[in-house]
Amino acid sequence: MKAAVYGGPGQVAVAEMPEPGIGHPRDAVVRVTRTAICGSDLHPYRGEIPGFRAGTVLGHEFAGTVHQAGPEVPFRVGERVFASDLIACGRCGNCARGWHYHCPAATLFGYSTVVGPAVGGGQAEYVRVPFADVVLAATPEDVTDEQAVFVSDTLTTGYAAVKAAGIEPGAVVAVVGAGTVGLLSALCAVTAGAAYTVVADPSAARRAHAESLGLPAVPPEALADAVWQADRRGASGVIEAVGTDAALACALRVAGARATVSCVGAHQSAAMPFPTGLAFTRELSVRFTVGDPIALRDRVLALVRSGRIDPTRVVSRRLPLAEAARAYELFDAGAAVKVMLVADGS
Amino acid sequence: MKAAVYGGPGQVAVAEMPEPGIGHPRDAVVRVTRTAICGSDLHPYRGEIPGFRAGTVLGHEFAGTVHQAGPEVPFRVGERVFASDLIACGRCGNCARGWHYHCPAATLFGYSTVVGPAVGGGQAEYVRVPFADVVLAATPEDVTDEQAVFVSDTLTTGYAAVKAAGIEPGAVVAVVGAGTVGLLSALCAVTAGAAYTVVADPSAARRAHAESLGLPAVPPEALADAVWQADRRGASGVIEAVGTDAALACALRVAGARATVSCVGAHQSAAMPFPTGLAFTRELSVRFTVGDPIALRDRVLALVRSGRIDPTRVVSRRLPLAEAARAYELFDAGAAVKVMLVADGS
Amino acid sequence: MKAAVYGGPGQVAVAEMPEPGIGHPRDAVVRVTRTAICGSDLHPYRGEIPGFRAGTVLGHEFAGTVHQAGPEVPFRVGERVFASDLIACGRCGNCARGWHYHCPAATLFGYSTVVGPAVGGGQAEYVRVPFADVVLAATPEDVTDEQAVFVSDTLTTGYAAVKAAGIEPGAVVAVVGAGTVGLLSALCAVTAGAAYTVVADPSAARRAHAESLGLPAVPPEALADAVWQADRRGASGVIEAVGTDAALACALRVAGARATVSCVGAHQSAAMPFPTGLAFTRELSVRFTVGDPIALRDRVLALVRSGRIDPTRVVSRRLPLAEAARAYELFDAGAAVKVMLVADGS
Amino acid sequence: MKAAVYGGPGQVAVAEMPEPGIGHPRDAVVRVTRTAICGSDLHPYRGEIPGFRAGTVLGHEFAGTVHQAGPEVPFRVGERVFASDLIACGRCGNCARGWHYHCPAATLFGYSTVVGPAVGGGQAEYVRVPFADVVLAATPEDVTDEQAVFVSDTLTTGYAAVKAAGIEPGAVVAVVGAGTVGLLSALCAVTAGAAYTVVADPSAARRAHAESLGLPAVPPEALADAVWQADRRGASGVIEAVGTDAALACALRVAGARATVSCVGAHQSAAMPFPTGLAFTRELSVRFTVGDPIALRDRVLALVRSGRIDPTRVVSRRLPLAEAARAYELFDAGAAVKVMLVADGS
Repeated sequence: MKAAVYGGPGQVAVAEMPEPGIGHPRDAVVRVTRTAICGSDLHPYRGEIPGFRAGTVLGHEFAGTVHQAGPEVPFRVGERVFASDLIACGRCGNCARGWHYHCPAATLFGYSTVVGPAVGGGQAEYVRVPFADVVLAATPEDVTDEQAVFVSDTLTTGYAAVKAAGIEPGAVVAVVGAGTVGLLSALCAVTAGAAYTVVADPSAARRAHAESLGLPAVPPEALADAVWQADRRGASGVIEAVGTDAALACALRVAGARATVSCVGAHQSAAMPFPTGLAFTRELSVRFTVGDPIALRDRVLALVRSGRIDPTRVVSRRLPLAEAARAYELFDAGAAVKVMLVADGS
Repeated sequence: MKAAVYGGPGQVAVAEMPEPGIGHPRDAVVRVTRTAICGSDLHPYRGEIPGFRAGTVLGHEFAGTVHQAGPEVPFRVGERVFASDLIACGRCGNCARGWHYHCPAATLFGYSTVVGPAVGGGQAEYVRVPFADVVLAATPEDVTDEQAVFVSDTLTTGYAAVKAAGIEPGAVVAVVGAGTVGLLSALCAVTAGAAYTVVADPSAARRAHAESLGLPAVPPEALADAVWQADRRGASGVIEAVGTDAALACALRVAGARATVSCVGAHQSAAMPFPTGLAFTRELSVRFTVGDPIALRDRVLALVRSGRIDPTRVVSRRLPLAEAARAYELFDAGAAVKVMLVADGS
Repeated sequence: MKAAVYGGPGQVAVAEMPEPGIGHPRDAVVRVTRTAICGSDLHPYRGEIPGFRAGTVLGHEFAGTVHQAGPEVPFRVGERVFASDLIACGRCGNCARGWHYHCPAATLFGYSTVVGPAVGGGQAEYVRVPFADVVLAATPEDVTDEQAVFVSDTLTTGYAAVKAAGIEPGAVVAVVGAGTVGLLSALCAVTAGAAYTVVADPSAARRAHAESLGLPAVPPEALADAVWQADRRGASGVIEAVGTDAALACALRVAGARATVSCVGAHQSAAMPFPTGLAFTRELSVRFTVGDPIALRDRVLALVRSGRIDPTRVVSRRLPLAEAARAYELFDAGAAVKVMLVADGS
Repeated sequence: MKAAVYGGPGQVAVAEMPEPGIGHPRDAVVRVTRTAICGSDLHPYRGEIPGFRAGTVLGHEFAGTVHQAGPEVPFRVGERVFASDLIACGRCGNCARGWHYHCPAATLFGYSTVVGPAVGGGQAEYVRVPFADVVLAATPEDVTDEQAVFVSDTLTTGYAAVKAAGIEPGAVVAVVGAGTVGLLSALCAVTAGAAYTVVADPSAARRAHAESLGLPAVPPEALADAVWQADRRGASGVIEAVGTDAALACALRVAGARATVSCVGAHQSAAMPFPTGLAFTRELSVRFTVGDPIALRDRVLALVRSGRIDPTRVVSRRLPLAEAARAYELFDAGAAVKVMLVADGS
């Protein structure tokens, strides 16, 4: 089968790989119809993940149909499904509480350095899904495969960001970052009743994208002013969807009294210069959230089915899987907010 | 001054009454520009409140301008203000927690049998406002007096209903009752991200009113089917905005697993036949909520200012204060969902 | 093997039954060392469950060791384990949220009329455990099998009752019912910091049992006075652990403003006479909770391990499994609060 | 009257000062019987508060009796009362929500650089209490003045710390800092049902004090091990009661998956080196909380009245008010955990 394979920093190639099979009664194999490149795929691409192995099939956002199913998997061959980006066992204490990211067996598709053996990714014609009885969900008839790809990761992350921020109808909300997760978080905040939602991003192209979705957008240095115009007391909810020190600093600056700053950017700093004096004076809460498509997909699917949010509005480019290498280049260069890879004949 | 005065069951007349004055440093007198008839005003009108005294000036929903202000009242004469329907002292233990309805001094405007001495109501040219430093709020420039009347009571009640129901984006919501509070609750549920919101009411006219606001509406006996169509598991949030045994029974029937039924109808039953077996099997929560315009008006004003909700869309009739008697008749006959009384020259 | 078998209303006999085996890769067979009779076992015993089949092995509270384990079960033969009283699949949407009781496959051990085929109960030498990877948990070294039996059901239910009631340190708490769940709920409320916890029960013997655990106990008709003595404003949390109309009515009477009444009694009424007027005036919440040992056992085990609660203090009688018939008689007659059945040689 | 007066860095003297009087209808004057030195009083003492004015009467923790009461103050002369350390107006939007610390008029007793005019402190024979209808509360008969001093600040802060940390029965809790707030937070955590509560402090004397209260105590570098012994997954709640970068770093290290780190130390850093990577991986929440004696005193008083917590157990020294200078020296030198100043003849 064809797959997007990691070859080292800056190198992604579409290569012929062995088709995966069932190795366990809870395994399934999915034939992929749509798969997306996530911002976090750029970390290995840019050589930022030490020990990421060449030969890894990339990608953790995908939807398709069941190609093979182990005896413990309650889906039929041919059934339309999408996966959680996060793999979890479904039977440990943390899974029982709905904390799938903290499952001892938790891993991501297409990531070779996370604890445990690497699991091949979804930027491929076929992908093996472990614990498929838990990791897969049926794609409803009125949801497209492309929409389902968003439920598998980024839209659910945006939903989790808004939930963690405790956003109530009437809130003033600031979102730092106009990438896919930032935009979807902002759309979720609007859907949750925010009276005013403003997005900050240094890129004019991304701001234009945000504006095209009906979201006011400003450069980060103008965010405080924009929030102050809406409410002198600052934002009551702030979502940080970048994952850098600067983004979190920006988010903290605009948070009002007793606000929550909800971080869904993939932070990696050991020593972000954090303003504890400001946080204490305003009694802020800062919550870091990874998102959990297994626990949350039900509610997120309902939003998509009802038409309240169409996440495919953030797709800026569609390319065939065969052009994955070019897709990574475009995405890495900031020439696309979200790239969707389309399987042949789907 | 002119005022709508209760004369006994079925009798409301516009009469000449003495103009109220300041009796305490925390008192203010408000010149009323807009005042509405609330569904709960029909209880005395229909003779359902034992001991309600003839001669009481009616009404607890009003907005206007400050006419006189005691030395402890931080508003200027002429400033635009609206009151909370609920009067509370602001200095007891319950007020300190934001539980104004449970203040030992709590009372309503225009109600003569609530504990404590009657306070004249707002369906008048002038009204005395006790604890005006706590009970009054400034009307923002971009909010009309008519909108502010809703923040003083019914829109805030709808907001509280949705908050108590714990409605999250993607929820399926059923609202029992298409009166003012039911309609505003439904609009708040939509604003809070409900994937589907359906309203039930036996009156075809009220259902048509709901539909004109974009809300699907069905007779109560068709509510379960409508909910089931949206989600086989039932509603995850139900709002009961009538206050009768039948309405609560209807609400319970459509609640799904772990749903919350949020009651904002003014219940008075001593023995509603409650299906505890069903409630246990589905692990339901039933929450009774009065609403608290003092604690919540900030968020509700933000919704109105941002244009996310325009509560005046539920007004079905505007009449001069002088025609209050006719207004009560129309409202009591179900010929109007919400009647707004307009002061002369405002 | 020996097992306590239902023979019709009022009839339980210890009979020789075929030893269960593994029928599915996720099955396990547990050799039972301790098993208890639950108040809800009296419903079939008293003939209150229409269609309950003669020949059913009773009991849903048990602990022991793994006797056989299917290939999907992550426990070794000989490992000490206890089950959740509730069986759930662990892979559906509701299980993924931690709502195991609402799993479409949910059933109880030893109950023959719940949806789905009957699963033999734990009042036996051996019991088959379906979905054992999810339903079983390891018994820690410092927890006895007898303690684990409580984590499998009643202590966890008490914990859930307190959690649903939102009891904070300093709260005044009333508990209606001094059976096993009532007593354990009260001990959990004390552990959660209640300033005052009072238990109501009509039985003098049960009140004496409560008092022996350090819990003030009164007859139901004296509960309001006891609560008023502690706080004029009423209880801020009430736990109803009986499941009758009268018990819920009693619980509602003592609830103060904005209190939560948490019902963990197994209610079955279609028309409990519910005082909606009172509930509205006080803005009460009434929450019905079944309890979920799969989601909650982790926290409950920690309480037991730390010695904060020793649930075996409520055991009033220990008998060998062979005397199960007599145990049912004693329990049904109210001559024991909690009967523990002990396996031979354990 | 005699009062402890700030004279410059390191200088506190008991001086004769004019007795305060009523300046506003909501003012009261309290005759102080007990007053304590708070850790935050050391900031001006050490010259760390730029602009703190010489001549300021110090102290914000006190209890006593009403000496004079303005017409708007609902307390009688001679009534036993205690103040909130925090002064708030009780009538603004934030006060209406129970957010008194964010009242625009909020200030502390005995602090001269907080926004607004300085308000004389409570380490004096008499103190003027602004907004006394909101700031004062009656001391119940069964609560001593010394206990009430703790409800006015530190015990309430400990209570707020535990509430913000979301500590449930069965939780493993770590507390960083064994000063007054740390110890009281730890006692509150135990009261809230923590299965295991460990305190970390570099001072052997403070650790001995903690141990004498029944709290295991370790040096900060041994905290992780102590927590790991209790639960391999780390603490589910962490309270940081110091206010330094090092203390917060220590708190973050021991937090387990989805834990909350609740900071009640008075942080002042502009750039604490924060490990965002760790916080993201574990999905931590970090909440900064000041505490609000006006909103919370009711619950805290109930804990004291019931005997669940006696905060006076942390008092290590009692001195007459006349020896305030020596008291500051002892406290600053770490020779006392909590110093209580006792008025003459009380």
